[in-house]
Amino acid sequence: MIAAGSSVEPFWVLYGIHVNDHVFEVLETLRIGNLSKSDIVNVADVGDPYAKDPIRHSALKPANMKPFNAEISPALLCESFITPKNRFQFEGLDLDVTATQYAASIPIWKAVDRRGDVILAYEMNGVPIPPDHGYPIRVVVPGVAGARNVKWLGKIVVSEKESTSHWQQNDYKGFSPSIDYDNVDFSKAPSIQELPVISAICKPLEGEVVKVENGYINLKGYAWSGGGQQIIRVDLTLDEGKTWHIASLDAQDTALPPQHWAWTLWSAKLPVAPEFKEVEIWCKAVDSCYNTQPERFENIWNFRGVLSNAYHRVKIKLNQ
Amino acid sequence: MIAAGSSVEPFWVLYGIHVNDHVFEVLETLRIGNLSKSDIVNVADVGDPYAKDPIRHSALKPANMKPFNAEISPALLCESFITPKNRFQFEGLDLDVTATQYAASIPIWKAVDRRGDVILAYEMNGVPIPPDHGYPIRVVVPGVAGARNVKWLGKIVVSEKESTSHWQQNDYKGFSPSIDYDNVDFSKAPSIQELPVISAICKPLEGEVVKVENGYINLKGYAWSGGGQQIIRVDLTLDEGKTWHIASLDAQDTALPPQHWAWTLWSAKLPVAPEFKEVEIWCKAVDSCYNTQPERFENIWNFRGVLSNAYHRVKIKLNQ
Repeated sequence: MIAAGSSVEPFWVLYGIHVNDHVFEVLETLRIGNLSKSDIVNVADVGDPYAKDPIRHSALKPANMKPFNAEISPALLCESFITPKNRFQFEGLDLDVTATQYAASIPIWKAVDRRGDVILAYEMNGVPIPPDHGYPIRVVVPGVAGARNVKWLGKIVVSEKESTSHWQQNDYKGFSPSIDYDNVDFSKAPSIQELPVISAICKPLEGEVVKVENGYINLKGYAWSGGGQQIIRVDLTLDEGKTWHIASLDAQDTALPPQHWAWTLWSAKLPVAPEFKEVEIWCKAVDSCYNTQPERFENIWNFRGVLSNAYHRVKIKLNQ
Repeated sequence: MIAAGSSVEPFWVLYGIHVNDHVFEVLETLRIGNLSKSDIVNVADVGDPYAKDPIRHSALKPANMKPFNAEISPALLCESFITPKNRFQFEGLDLDVTATQYAASIPIWKAVDRRGDVILAYEMNGVPIPPDHGYPIRVVVPGVAGARNVKWLGKIVVSEKESTSHWQQNDYKGFSPSIDYDNVDFSKAPSIQELPVISAICKPLEGEVVKVENGYINLKGYAWSGGGQQIIRVDLTLDEGKTWHIASLDAQDTALPPQHWAWTLWSAKLPVAPEFKEVEIWCKAVDSCYNTQPERFENIWNFRGVLSNAYHRVKIKLNQ
């Protein structure tokens, strides 16, 4: 469709995330023949819209280069409330190769509510907001999924209706575990706005060898809840829930719910029995509505791969 | 302390919930002797403050008569949005035998928020609010725990601080599963206000023999979430989560979140394999923040016995 009779290769290159062995394996099963060399028509180079991308920070671990899409190390995530510049990338208001603009909407009550704290951000950490974060303007909708925090903002429409964009109507939604692409009805699920409560262990990481000091190990992580709810407790267990320990909430913003937008950073020093050679850490948070996380992903799994807020579990080796 | 050197018996009688074998067994271990009959002093009858109680509806199953404290049958709970009169009892603003008034508080933002919908109710279902519901005035705080919906309201104080009452400070709070009466610090937990998402199966009941009709059984129940969040889905499983079915949401109020205060009534017709003689139904709800319920009570258990929003599970026998 995009190629309209021409080569699809420029489009493959443009969205490089699909240029991988797994996709080529799938395509191979669909091959119906090979073009004779004399039939190949040269197509104009669509150019590289990412040519002027800035140089990114070296701490980023790119999952994809074009468009740039990277993760930060979990340990760094726990260091500070201040988001370092140039460290994330989401899809935005720029045109994709089908000339479609990214678009999303939020309920009007959230936009006009004095306590909604929705802002149009032109600065971040005291300097103009960097291109990767939506320069010159990004809408920031605290407590709401990032997909609704549109970057490179070009237009605001006040309407009684939701955005009709693909991302609003057919993408960021949650479904029952037994729903898949064959039986899904996207109109049956509301678009994700406020998110459920979540927590993560950032230190140690999965598989890490951790030094036991005087019978204890040190942990760090974060927790957060949507809708401005405050994290009131983070519980940790090393014995599959037989004993729960309470983390220290080290850094938390001072706003009260339901305007508590920031992450809570937690830490804990937990006792481990001297005979243990490895241990699995489980982590769950509780928010100011006393909502907590589901234990396992199986019962909240959904084919869109979103809303994965089951307990974070990290298995580590002990050096003692 | 209450008896102040006199017989404690009138006070036992007054709060009859303690007059049961279990309490007497505990007291028996504390017995230090028996009074000689000549030492017994007659005390004035404190009277029966419940003497003028109204006659209650016959569908109620009383757990206690003085004060009256009853449950309604789960099937009736699903019948209608209209709360029948004279069907609940909570502690209220009346004095207890220690001359202490019941008291509770809510955050100021909830009380003054246009979307908070807090009302002082003097009518219910079109008639003066019945005594059991707080005549002449009860504060109704939608989305918030019933313990903060004070009955027989005598006074409203506007303050920056929470109520200092026992029920606000040391009673309706949630704690980690490893906290008990020996290590609890009540100041470490916020008072329960908005409640987490919950659901229940009302029909069939635990242990019921259910007729299978053409391979299907019929279920009914309710779901609800605090803070005005809407129920967006109720998932049901008959095979411990291997397959999830989606209930029909039959009755739901028309308000949008976060002003969606009413219960959602659901029903479902689920297929059962012909060889099954019994089955366990699990039920979980998802609200408009996409928060859902924890799977098991073990990991959310807390010594105050509150916030028990794990999956509702009902084991039934099949007649097929």
